[in-house]
Amino acid sequence: MKLTQAIQQRRTVREFSSTPVAEDVLQEILAAGTWAPSHRNTQPWEFTIIGPETRRKLAAAYREAMEAGPLQDPAVLDQVKQSLRKFLQNFGDAPVLLAVSSVPPSAPVDHYDFPLTLGAAIQNILLAAWEKDVAGVWISFGATPQAKTILEIADGGLIGGILAIGYPASVPAAAPRVPVTAKLRRLP
Amino acid sequence: MKLTQAIQQRRTVREFSSTPVAEDVLQEILAAGTWAPSHRNTQPWEFTIIGPETRRKLAAAYREAMEAGPLQDPAVLDQVKQSLRKFLQNFGDAPVLLAVSSVPPSAPVDHYDFPLTLGAAIQNILLAAWEKDVAGVWISFGATPQAKTILEIADGGLIGGILAIGYPASVPAAAPRVPVTAKLRRLP
Repeated sequence: MKLTQAIQQRRTVREFSSTPVAEDVLQEILAAGTWAPSHRNTQPWEFTIIGPETRRKLAAAYREAMEAGPLQDPAVLDQVKQSLRKFLQNFGDAPVLLAVSSVPPSAPVDHYDFPLTLGAAIQNILLAAWEKDVAGVWISFGATPQAKTILEIADGGLIGGILAIGYPASVPAAAPRVPVTAKLRRLP
Repeated sequence: MKLTQAIQQRRTVREFSSTPVAEDVLQEILAAGTWAPSHRNTQPWEFTIIGPETRRKLAAAYREAMEAGPLQDPAVLDQVKQSLRKFLQNFGDAPVLLAVSSVPPSAPVDHYDFPLTLGAAIQNILLAAWEKDVAGVWISFGATPQAKTILEIADGGLIGGILAIGYPASVPAAAPRVPVTAKLRRLP
């Protein structure tokens, strides 16, 4: 697949077919993450494949947090809530649930660098997945202390993303993008 | 260019030819950044093209910070210091200097999401550049208050990266990577 095609056509997917993702395919996808740049080549990322027992705990904590938060928000459309509740049952029945996290910082600048590097690694992973017809959703529940506890993340470690991935049952349209010219500023 | 090739062969480049990067090429490269995913489609990124006057100020502040920090560090090899000092003269004479920053957070979760999203956008930019034979270096000096002041970043905004880019004069070897199997953990 061409790079441009992957970058522009990749979509966030929340509904999956039951087709499993083979272990070698998954490892190739994750390997793309290791090619991300990291400052001073720290390569702080860690990948966690989440098994059924841990997944049940994580799903329960995630549902609870969403029910107490966004799902109470009157500004969130009913249709969005319905779709979210469906996803929350079991991460859209995604065949793979994984986390991309970092080791604890060992230098002050790591606090700045690590989230950026994790973002780059996760983007590589999502692009490499798309090339293999695999897609998913980058969940920000990793920001919570509950997620860190359940996923046994070391003190100071950061979960850059929990990814639910698999072969899509449906692919939504692209979210509209603001063109680059409207995001561009020039300094003298 | 194939996605896998871009992901695996992209290199950090600190020495540039004098060939300018055409404006339309630069805008296409930046447009790749806008295809990054962002939570709730916030698209918080902003791109700043840094002109000569601002570049001189930024270079001076950057040199000062590096001379007071890493260049004083006895653990940093002399060869690395020499190469860094050369780069610090004028960002390796990169024809383009730009910043990728975010707007200030408007929700608590943005503090978590924005750096991750900026990392994904910057990775898209570096990959799209590589496809066009353009490369560069992702500088973390954006972490400093001086950089934020010089680049007139709004209060609460985050500089995800300052990028010096252009056509490479030389391309270094890949930094060694730890294989994915050594970064992989499984939870029950």
